[in-house]
Amino acid sequence: MDPTRFETLTRRQFVNLVGKAGGFGAAYLVMQGLGLLPDDLAHASPPELEPGSGSGSSVAILGAGLAGLTAAYLLGKAGYDCYLLESRERAGGRCWTLRRGDSVEERGRAEQVCEFDHGLYFNPGAARIPANHSAVLGYCREFGVDLEVFVNANRSAMFQDDEAFGGKPIESRQLHSDTAGHIAELLVKATDSGALDEALGGLDRRRLLYFFKHFGDLDGNFRYRGSPRAGFEEFPGAGLTPGRGRAPLAFEALVDSRFWYWHMGFEKRFEQQATMLQPVGGMDRIARAFESRLAGRITYGAHVREIRKRSAGVRIVYGDKIGAEEQELEADFCICTIPLPVLKAIDSDFDAEHRTAIAAAPYINACKLAWQSQPRFWEDRLGIYGGISWTQREITQIWYPSSGFHGKSGILIGAYNYGNLASEFGNRSTAERAALSRDGVSLFHPGMESMLSKPISVAWQNIPYNESAFANWDPRTREQIYPILNRPDGRIYLAGEHLSYWTSWQEGAVRSAHAVSAAIDAHVRSLRA
Amino acid sequence: MDPTRFETLTRRQFVNLVGKAGGFGAAYLVMQGLGLLPDDLAHASPPELEPGSGSGSSVAILGAGLAGLTAAYLLGKAGYDCYLLESRERAGGRCWTLRRGDSVEERGRAEQVCEFDHGLYFNPGAARIPANHSAVLGYCREFGVDLEVFVNANRSAMFQDDEAFGGKPIESRQLHSDTAGHIAELLVKATDSGALDEALGGLDRRRLLYFFKHFGDLDGNFRYRGSPRAGFEEFPGAGLTPGRGRAPLAFEALVDSRFWYWHMGFEKRFEQQATMLQPVGGMDRIARAFESRLAGRITYGAHVREIRKRSAGVRIVYGDKIGAEEQELEADFCICTIPLPVLKAIDSDFDAEHRTAIAAAPYINACKLAWQSQPRFWEDRLGIYGGISWTQREITQIWYPSSGFHGKSGILIGAYNYGNLASEFGNRSTAERAALSRDGVSLFHPGMESMLSKPISVAWQNIPYNESAFANWDPRTREQIYPILNRPDGRIYLAGEHLSYWTSWQEGAVRSAHAVSAAIDAHVRSLRA
Ligand SMILES: Cc1cc2nc3c(=O)[nH]c(=O)nc-3n(C[C@H](O)[C@H](O)[C@H](O)COP(=O)(O)OP(=O)(O)OC[C@H]3O[C@@H](n4cnc5c(N)ncnc54)[C@H](O)[C@@H]3O)c2cc1C
Ligand SMILES: Cc1cc2nc3c(=O)[nH]c(=O)nc-3n(C[C@H](O)[C@H](O)[C@H](O)COP(=O)(O)OP(=O)(O)OC[C@H]3O[C@@H](n4cnc5c(N)ncnc54)[C@H](O)[C@@H]3O)c2cc1C
Repeated sequence: MDPTRFETLTRRQFVNLVGKAGGFGAAYLVMQGLGLLPDDLAHASPPELEPGSGSGSSVAILGAGLAGLTAAYLLGKAGYDCYLLESRERAGGRCWTLRRGDSVEERGRAEQVCEFDHGLYFNPGAARIPANHSAVLGYCREFGVDLEVFVNANRSAMFQDDEAFGGKPIESRQLHSDTAGHIAELLVKATDSGALDEALGGLDRRRLLYFFKHFGDLDGNFRYRGSPRAGFEEFPGAGLTPGRGRAPLAFEALVDSRFWYWHMGFEKRFEQQATMLQPVGGMDRIARAFESRLAGRITYGAHVREIRKRSAGVRIVYGDKIGAEEQELEADFCICTIPLPVLKAIDSDFDAEHRTAIAAAPYINACKLAWQSQPRFWEDRLGIYGGISWTQREITQIWYPSSGFHGKSGILIGAYNYGNLASEFGNRSTAERAALSRDGVSLFHPGMESMLSKPISVAWQNIPYNESAFANWDPRTREQIYPILNRPDGRIYLAGEHLSYWTSWQEGAVRSAHAVSAAIDAHVRSLRA
Repeated sequence: MDPTRFETLTRRQFVNLVGKAGGFGAAYLVMQGLGLLPDDLAHASPPELEPGSGSGSSVAILGAGLAGLTAAYLLGKAGYDCYLLESRERAGGRCWTLRRGDSVEERGRAEQVCEFDHGLYFNPGAARIPANHSAVLGYCREFGVDLEVFVNANRSAMFQDDEAFGGKPIESRQLHSDTAGHIAELLVKATDSGALDEALGGLDRRRLLYFFKHFGDLDGNFRYRGSPRAGFEEFPGAGLTPGRGRAPLAFEALVDSRFWYWHMGFEKRFEQQATMLQPVGGMDRIARAFESRLAGRITYGAHVREIRKRSAGVRIVYGDKIGAEEQELEADFCICTIPLPVLKAIDSDFDAEHRTAIAAAPYINACKLAWQSQPRFWEDRLGIYGGISWTQREITQIWYPSSGFHGKSGILIGAYNYGNLASEFGNRSTAERAALSRDGVSLFHPGMESMLSKPISVAWQNIPYNESAFANWDPRTREQIYPILNRPDGRIYLAGEHLSYWTSWQEGAVRSAHAVSAAIDAHVRSLRA
């Protein structure tokens, strides 16, 4: 390629040339490198496809989770003929909300039917949206999905560890404040000793001591003697009742406990930092908003059984759940958003490299359990409004609702765990799960466990059409497997949360759909050029 | 007093005896010491006064802010004849919400009329409720005042200092995360150097290093090289776009900046920690709820001019605002909730000690300014949902709304300052304030200041019937002046936010009213005994 000529090419023309030269897979990677795909923007707008650019081209989209819905919506607007095949009787996939009368079917377990009172709901999959997930939030804005604040970090929520603090639940405010206090005091000591002289260079030492004092709320002698930040033994009131502070937890006890493995840093993660949001009324409001814009495009109960390549397109074989009748769909392109633990068992024409990669991609398990509670004892008695209590026991988390405050009842998430703990929890009967959760709740709220009723649980690894919770790349597989899956196999493009740097988030599914929609559109144009 | 007899007395009988012996003032202090007043409870229920216990007794309550309203509500339920005198045409005092058509009158300034679109509002006084302010929240529950989360700490909000970081606004996530990272690295160095050996005692050093690593998100070599917690230079996306982290801010720059004077610790304060709440639709929903339960008990436009003692009761002289006609109210007791900067100018029979204390109590000034903005550019472009941006400039704070997300317009608080800065700001014309605020907003949101319209500002020190923002005790005045004011002067009891350990909070006003209501009830019973 003549470099002079190259310079006068538009970037898009260049991509088209690469497409012809090296197959579209090569062009796709180059596009990403050039930033022509939209997913490297902090505030991702959907790619702008020319209206009508897809007319005459058809796309089979496998799976109507958020990835499939987004792709169908975008490509549809550009004139593509999109056909969504969805094995379930509902769209949304892991963007799912359970309400009275809804059922959960796990492999090998009796069906659970949700018995909550009307108006209550539980999001067994996606439940919160970080404020920086601009692609998802962009659709919420576009579709008028109302949002409210989701409370992730609540200083009145607690941490409990059977092997620390005598097993007693400790308020988050105490853990965080006493940690900061001790740390600040250690820094003062280290600074005074001269041990940090080299590291601190020319920093004004007096100013630094005040910085540490503010950081940890040290006393006038730069020692940590407890702080109101950590809460009160006796609450201050009016008149002559100044209250009494809490004695600080010993630094040894804090370090010996396990609160810092997970709990301490959790809310500091980029994707868990305030502000977090949730759709008012349930996460599936987002899926419903897409669905209503895709009327007639989605075939429900369409269980994909075979994914075939044709000379210039794809052929998809699908059937209803009991497999009585098989049907076929032919299309020019395919976007496959089927989670990989499901996909690997489907007959397909994927090339060897893709096939191996699909089978080897790491996933992680996760479970949630929800209760109806009446009354909302955590608000009345403890002033807990939203947030998460953590325990080292199997249930791991308790989530308090972030809205509906002071209502007569509410949904308490009584377990939310990952990985090995989730595998164990998921292996239990639903009754055993509920019993474990009840025990867990009673650790934090003794006597209150009797207010809980109507438990319902979801172990994602047992859920057909998911078979796990979400992708869980590690540095090695991210390097070796992930790039393969991001390369189209002929006219089949893979998409979904797993093909993003936001795995385990809806944002990943949506951005992946953006990227793949733009790529197919470029592919189509490269064929026409 | 015979100690044997003492032991057989109920605590209440004992108090009655003290009351007879030493005047009720003495008994009141003893009651507090014995914990008979309700305000030392973490989750304050109102004192339980016997229904009917007040029948035949009358109470003049001066001021229908939250303290006066609470006292009238409680005492009224116990059968007291309560008469609320309120100088304004509305109840609520500093629990106040401005909507279209409402006006603000500051001394020496033209009236401002709120021009916001319908449905928008601004709380110029109280705006947020900490989840541990159980007395206020208890009334919200009792009265069915709907609550929603108020976002105080938002990691996407910013801090700006003309003398730091080249004047550039820095995201909260970066300030907090880089601070924690550098601090953790310093601790690792100090630990390795042995300088902390004495302080660390037997703590497992390896475990400790991991504790620090988690604290600051250090790398594999226990060094801080930046962290996703601090945000991204390039946002991670789908496909092959892992994103790129931000280079950490230098520790020197962090220490040299002034973010840690106020901003760093702000959200860590007990009363500012998550979860914070707000009434849906405006803070005055709380005042309105009380008001509707006190129909006929409140005389509006009743400006108290004199507070007189009678042989066994009080006489209050009040008039309408222009002072045309004076009226009198006689009652057995008086609860005076008039803010002290106002009270000190009122003719009264207070004894010398009270008079001096009233004049000497320290208060602090504060101002707020609000804009209507269309669109809500902070959400669309920056993903800021609620929270506070801080600047070292005079306006000090910008508050983003915590609800109504993605609406077509919203209220942006464009200034909220205290102390000297508030005094300066309040001295300006309302047009100058708006211009300063516009400048301030443009520091964070360049170009967006043109979206702002309909400014309205409140400088509390210029507001008649307040004359300042709230009490501001320091250790000396808390010791020398505060106890005097908590002692009744004959049958006159002082109440309000200033007579609590929650000054500047509604909780203080409400708890003070609880305490004083219980005290008057005890006083009445002591007179009957
Ligand atoms: C426990 C849990 C908690 C989570 N929490 C959050 C959170 O708080 N916030 C957040 O943003 N995200 C969260 N997520 C992640 C989020 O739910 C997912 O990243 C996102 O919904 C995935 O969308 P997807 O379209 O890639 O996959 P899916 O939603 O799984 O969609 C795939 C679709 O393919 C269909 N399908 C499968 N097999 C076949 C077949 N053979 N034939 C036809 N169709 C088939 C499925 O029925 C499904 O509808 C959570 C997920 C889980 C499991
Ligand atoms: C800028 C600002 C921000 C605040 N933020 C918060 C917050 O976020 N959360 C929170 O909980 N609290 C907040 N507060 C504090 C809270 O508003 C007060 O603590 C509380 O409302 C005080 O109640 P009160 O009844 O003691 O006094 P007030 O509300 O001031 O009531 C006193 C009443 O007396 C009346 N009065 C005065 N003089 C006379 C007279 N001569 N005759 C008759 N009546 C008279 C007044 O009109 C008024 O109605 C804030 C206050 C300010 C100023």
